[in-house]
Amino acid sequence: ASDGGEGPSTAFRVDSEGLQRQIDELASFSDSPAPSVTRVLYSDKDVQARRYIKGIMNQLGLAVREDAVGNIFGRWEGSEAVLGAVGTGSHVDAIPFSGKYDGVVGVLGALEAISLLKRSGFQPKRSLDVIMFTSEEPTRFGISCLGSRLMAGIEELAQSLRKVVDNQNVSFLDAAESAGYKMHPEDLQSVFLKKDSYSAFIELHIEQGPILEKEGIPIGIVTAIAAPASITVEFEGNGGHAGAVLMPARNDAGLAAAELALAVEKHVLESGSIDTVGTVGILQLHPGAINSIPSKSHLEIDVRDIDEKRRNDVIEKIRRSATEISKNRGVVLSEFRIINQDPPALSDKSVVEAMEFAAKQLNLEYKKMISRAYHDSLFMARVSPMGMIFIPCYKGLYSIGPSPFSYSHKPEEYASPEDMANGVKVLALTMAKLSLE
Amino acid sequence: ASDGGEGPSTAFRVDSEGLQRQIDELASFSDSPAPSVTRVLYSDKDVQARRYIKGIMNQLGLAVREDAVGNIFGRWEGSEAVLGAVGTGSHVDAIPFSGKYDGVVGVLGALEAISLLKRSGFQPKRSLDVIMFTSEEPTRFGISCLGSRLMAGIEELAQSLRKVVDNQNVSFLDAAESAGYKMHPEDLQSVFLKKDSYSAFIELHIEQGPILEKEGIPIGIVTAIAAPASITVEFEGNGGHAGAVLMPARNDAGLAAAELALAVEKHVLESGSIDTVGTVGILQLHPGAINSIPSKSHLEIDVRDIDEKRRNDVIEKIRRSATEISKNRGVVLSEFRIINQDPPALSDKSVVEAMEFAAKQLNLEYKKMISRAYHDSLFMARVSPMGMIFIPCYKGLYSIGPSPFSYSHKPEEYASPEDMANGVKVLALTMAKLSLE
Ligand SMILES: [Mn+2]
Ligand SMILES: [Mn+2]
Ligand SMILES: [Mn+2]
Ligand SMILES: [Mn+2]
Repeated sequence: ASDGGEGPSTAFRVDSEGLQRQIDELASFSDSPAPSVTRVLYSDKDVQARRYIKGIMNQLGLAVREDAVGNIFGRWEGSEAVLGAVGTGSHVDAIPFSGKYDGVVGVLGALEAISLLKRSGFQPKRSLDVIMFTSEEPTRFGISCLGSRLMAGIEELAQSLRKVVDNQNVSFLDAAESAGYKMHPEDLQSVFLKKDSYSAFIELHIEQGPILEKEGIPIGIVTAIAAPASITVEFEGNGGHAGAVLMPARNDAGLAAAELALAVEKHVLESGSIDTVGTVGILQLHPGAINSIPSKSHLEIDVRDIDEKRRNDVIEKIRRSATEISKNRGVVLSEFRIINQDPPALSDKSVVEAMEFAAKQLNLEYKKMISRAYHDSLFMARVSPMGMIFIPCYKGLYSIGPSPFSYSHKPEEYASPEDMANGVKVLALTMAKLSLE
Repeated sequence: ASDGGEGPSTAFRVDSEGLQRQIDELASFSDSPAPSVTRVLYSDKDVQARRYIKGIMNQLGLAVREDAVGNIFGRWEGSEAVLGAVGTGSHVDAIPFSGKYDGVVGVLGALEAISLLKRSGFQPKRSLDVIMFTSEEPTRFGISCLGSRLMAGIEELAQSLRKVVDNQNVSFLDAAESAGYKMHPEDLQSVFLKKDSYSAFIELHIEQGPILEKEGIPIGIVTAIAAPASITVEFEGNGGHAGAVLMPARNDAGLAAAELALAVEKHVLESGSIDTVGTVGILQLHPGAINSIPSKSHLEIDVRDIDEKRRNDVIEKIRRSATEISKNRGVVLSEFRIINQDPPALSDKSVVEAMEFAAKQLNLEYKKMISRAYHDSLFMARVSPMGMIFIPCYKGLYSIGPSPFSYSHKPEEYASPEDMANGVKVLALTMAKLSLE
């Protein structure tokens, strides 16, 4: 048979070039220079990206809906539109100086999956929804998976969003309005999904880890999402002049922060499990001058595990260390706040079976695996049977240093057109199957 | 005798209220809200402060001169103007979120000393100069004592100032021009002081330490200035996603920075001398997101001692630690740069004697002491006999935490009107004596 031969491979061909072109175009909406991408919630670039996504949804003939906080839904109505829909989707916001595939593959890839199903002449029974979630990344308001969390009906979030401000003191409500989402505080509850809105939700995403690449396997089928927690900590000391205050008289808030950062690593390693991870991604000193002893420090700590108790034990140890350090160094522990401490999520058996079916049909090797990064699926799992499809994610071309582990959340983030095409096909077939069930 | 009685105490009275009013007015030229002061080299606020100082010089009838980089000189011409002058002065730039006395007391206090001498009918033989030095603080270009260093004739500084840029990539020359100091690069050498321009230089300054306050002594006579050094360090790792990259695969540039910060403290304490101090006042992480492993870190380290060799040994240990940490953690030590490593300065015997004479005349107890902070006097000592007068500097009213050592470089910085008046009187009498020698 020739390349253009008959059979499902002909009819079921992903437009890889078009998808890559869209990914590159979307990456140009960025507040940092290429190849890095910075696209923060409700910024001008975020608004441009939203317009771009809605444009593609319209081109595909999908019915476009936006909720109060800007979660965007593109619906292909099925023949039995009263049934719960099959949802898919991800996010397009990007943390500062990151890459162009995280989240984006799960939105543009989902739209290409819809296009592929349309081109193949498929007719859905349950409606198919592509969702672009608002602010999966916690960059602006410190709240991860903001859109999907709210869709999951978390009442406390609806309350706290009325008051939350970013680090420029701009309120969530004002920021949303500036992006075209003017709302009354009571509208926040309208984002909550009605029960049984979805019979299934599947997210396509780059692995953001080394396993699929290392083992040469094109498809990962996610069986569980690790449980993330985030903590902010602040120490306060007396500061003073770097030359004049002698060492015994100091209570250096910066050194307290340094000790706590190393304690986080220690407690994580003590857990004894490879699945426990902890990171100090933010550490800020005040006033931040070479000749001033730091009088304040601010840390933000991320701790995850697939085992909730083990993760919570690490958090407890970090809390004890923070208290001890504050005592030993004579600094005040002015804040130790757990921002979120979510339970892990398990994939739904029937969704996993549908994904396995799809991969087998397409003759693609797959591996069942754990997602160590959180995703909007973590919260969609609370209101819908959930599953995730991973594709390999290569290390950057420009890796530096002796340890060449360099994957996601960086400009060098990369997924090959072939791997994306495989992911799109598995997603399309999984949705088609679940649509007819 | 009544309060308004006869004798030197009548004629020799400091206008404390006027001085305090000037200090408060100068503090209002600030880029951060009161009570903090932020006044960075060549900023609009710095330009306003300069105008204010020149205004007072003009009011006092001093001949005002500015050199190419904006060191400002107010001269009271003596009867033997060909002789080297007696200089005094300090700086008015202020690091971010600092206080209103550091530097300022040595400029406004010197002008009040001149006023006092004029009011008392004194006639100088050697001319008297009040100098406002440009950028004693390293805030903007990382160069401390920029103005006095250049006055001391350091050729390498004249060369490097042609190219240096701030963290917004604004060049020193462009910044100077924006503040009204347009120059050709060759003009930088014109700042070098001619040999024997000054027969003596005396700086009045708050102690920035606890000793005078604790011992209840109004006047410190400085016999030596500790030798400062500053270092910038950068580590680079591979970064990556905080959830997906497992602990053994990481090379976290932030944890490398945390370890080095604690190593600085350790090596300083190992020196065994109370006079060795080391500070990490700046520690920055990139990209600075809670869910990103730091891929870069930047530290700025300040190390000082009154013993140059002991200080240099500490720097060498810090260098070795940085190398070891980079090896152990698999991060790249992409920079370890000694920005400056200055020798200590000794006060001149005849200037010390003049200060002691003045304090005795005024019946003020004094203590000979070491300056642990550096000052423009450190560099003036290279081109003139030098001495410094310290006054007590109280801890802040708002000190927090168990260790109440809270002095300078903070909004709570404070010197009492009485202590300032004593300092002004000792300075005036010292200058008068040296002017006649
Ligand atoms: Mn992400
Ligand atoms: Mn993502
Ligand atoms: Mn200072
Ligand atoms: Mn000073």
